[in-house]
Amino acid sequence: MSQRKKLYEGKAKILYQGPEPGTIIQHFKDDATAFNAQKHEVIEGKGVLNNRISEHIFIQLDNLGIPTHFIKALNMREQLVQEVDVIPIEVVVRNFAAGSLVKRLGLEEGTHLPRTLVEYYYKDDALGDPMISEDHITTFGWATPQEIEEVSGLALRINDFMCGMFSAVGIRLVDFKLEFGRVWEEESMRIVLADEISPDNCRLWDVKTGDKLDKDRFRQDLGGLLNAYQEVAARLGLISREGQSGSSGPVLIKD
Amino acid sequence: MSQRKKLYEGKAKILYQGPEPGTIIQHFKDDATAFNAQKHEVIEGKGVLNNRISEHIFIQLDNLGIPTHFIKALNMREQLVQEVDVIPIEVVVRNFAAGSLVKRLGLEEGTHLPRTLVEYYYKDDALGDPMISEDHITTFGWATPQEIEEVSGLALRINDFMCGMFSAVGIRLVDFKLEFGRVWEEESMRIVLADEISPDNCRLWDVKTGDKLDKDRFRQDLGGLLNAYQEVAARLGLISREGQSGSSGPVLIKD
Ligand SMILES: Nc1ncnc2c1ncn2[C@@H]1O[C@H](COP(=O)(O)OP(=O)(O)OP(=O)(O)O)[C@@H](O)[C@H]1O
Ligand SMILES: Nc1ncnc2c1ncn2[C@@H]1O[C@H](COP(=O)(O)OP(=O)(O)OP(=O)(O)O)[C@@H](O)[C@H]1O
Ligand SMILES: [Mg+2]
Ligand SMILES: [Mg+2]
Repeated sequence: MSQRKKLYEGKAKILYQGPEPGTIIQHFKDDATAFNAQKHEVIEGKGVLNNRISEHIFIQLDNLGIPTHFIKALNMREQLVQEVDVIPIEVVVRNFAAGSLVKRLGLEEGTHLPRTLVEYYYKDDALGDPMISEDHITTFGWATPQEIEEVSGLALRINDFMCGMFSAVGIRLVDFKLEFGRVWEEESMRIVLADEISPDNCRLWDVKTGDKLDKDRFRQDLGGLLNAYQEVAARLGLISREGQSGSSGPVLIKD
Repeated sequence: MSQRKKLYEGKAKILYQGPEPGTIIQHFKDDATAFNAQKHEVIEGKGVLNNRISEHIFIQLDNLGIPTHFIKALNMREQLVQEVDVIPIEVVVRNFAAGSLVKRLGLEEGTHLPRTLVEYYYKDDALGDPMISEDHITTFGWATPQEIEEVSGLALRINDFMCGMFSAVGIRLVDFKLEFGRVWEEESMRIVLADEISPDNCRLWDVKTGDKLDKDRFRQDLGGLLNAYQEVAARLGLISREGQSGSSGPVLIKD
């Protein structure tokens, strides 16, 4: 376990070589970063919650027939996934206006968008992940038109599923970020959902109170990030409510 | 003439009510602005050159069957055009990397793009004309998918024509900005090219020397803007070379 090879350390996760060729262990850290890592903090327990939430969502998506990199849960912070060739694009799906869209188009935060919006950002920290259009993607060969079509189709299906799941537990899915990758199997190539889906890369608002239950608590110095992530996990039935069991903290509940 | 009604005064042009309903007089001023009008200067003679160059290009496009707002030349600074409902989108066509694309994607200025790139910017000075994608355009109803297809098709045809025209006179067409508008005729609606095409909204580089013959001379404080615009007009056969005729300045040549 301690001898395994570290392949990549990112802002929120570490990737280790997996036990079989073409597999990777995705390890969720407690680090929180924002504004292109200019702001950084360690929030104990965040990695455990994100791992559990992401694992749950990926399993559900798999059940729906949406291809993902997820293979199996390993432990509180780790999951086994297929190694993919990550498409260097962050796919952002928006149902309500928030974050950069509010600034870019001068909208009021929380405006219900006329339609679900799919945006693309070029994954390049040095450039600050600039927004790009489909024409940039195909001009520079980051993905083919067919791949963009597949990716945006999957992104919209994932949005449908997640809107349903979160609305059922009183949470509004404002927006979220996805990453996709390519996997080669024998002669053919498939596109699968990669990375994670967690309150680190979703905007989740309590339907009744409007409370933010996501990383904006950190970005906007609202405090209570861990409580918010626990609330999301508890509503999804992934952890027991703190204190209920008399234990020192929430207990993870398996899928 | 002095009694006519001013409809709009922009940074580079004034629009007056035309003699017939549905017509407008487009008057080219000498003002040069950049960086969202934070930088401003009056460059005597610029308006005359832009009017002449734009008029020439619009006439040529019309001959090619590309619908434009242009009706006829009026005088040194003015042209009669059809009043249109301007689509609030700046359409930018790029053949080589320059300007904001260089910054956004970290390219080297002058890089030949793998394909001609069409970009869209939302016309809103208060927001700094933010870049948008087709999905923003349709989500917010600024244009329909069919209109975007028509606009981008026209933009690429205009690029083909302009690449040919400028390369024939030793000028590289790096990029340019277009505006389109809607005109209603009886029951049907047409999309036409509006606004202007001039060195104010094109990047034009001398093929041999690489000299900039466009508004970047003003943006980048290179000086010699009027000479550059005269050079463009002279190469296109629109003015006589200064001094050749012994007059005090270049003489306009009619289409
Ligand atoms: N199945 C996979 N195979 C290979 N790489 C993956 C896979 N899933 C996710 N990744 C990549 O692993 C990294 C996850 O680490 P982390 O999220 O901490 O990165 P990051 O600091 O956010 O950097 P980035 O800007 O690249 O996302 C990301 O670069 C992501 O693209
Ligand atoms: N045929 C037309 N009918 C109506 N409006 C037009 C037509 N052609 C161009 N326009 C508009 O007239 C204005 C031209 O003025 P000018 O180029 O000086 O504006 P500007 O200061 O650049 O502002 P803008 O950011 O709106 O372009 C632009 O707003 C343009 O969209
Ligand atoms: Mg990441
Ligand atoms: Mg203008």
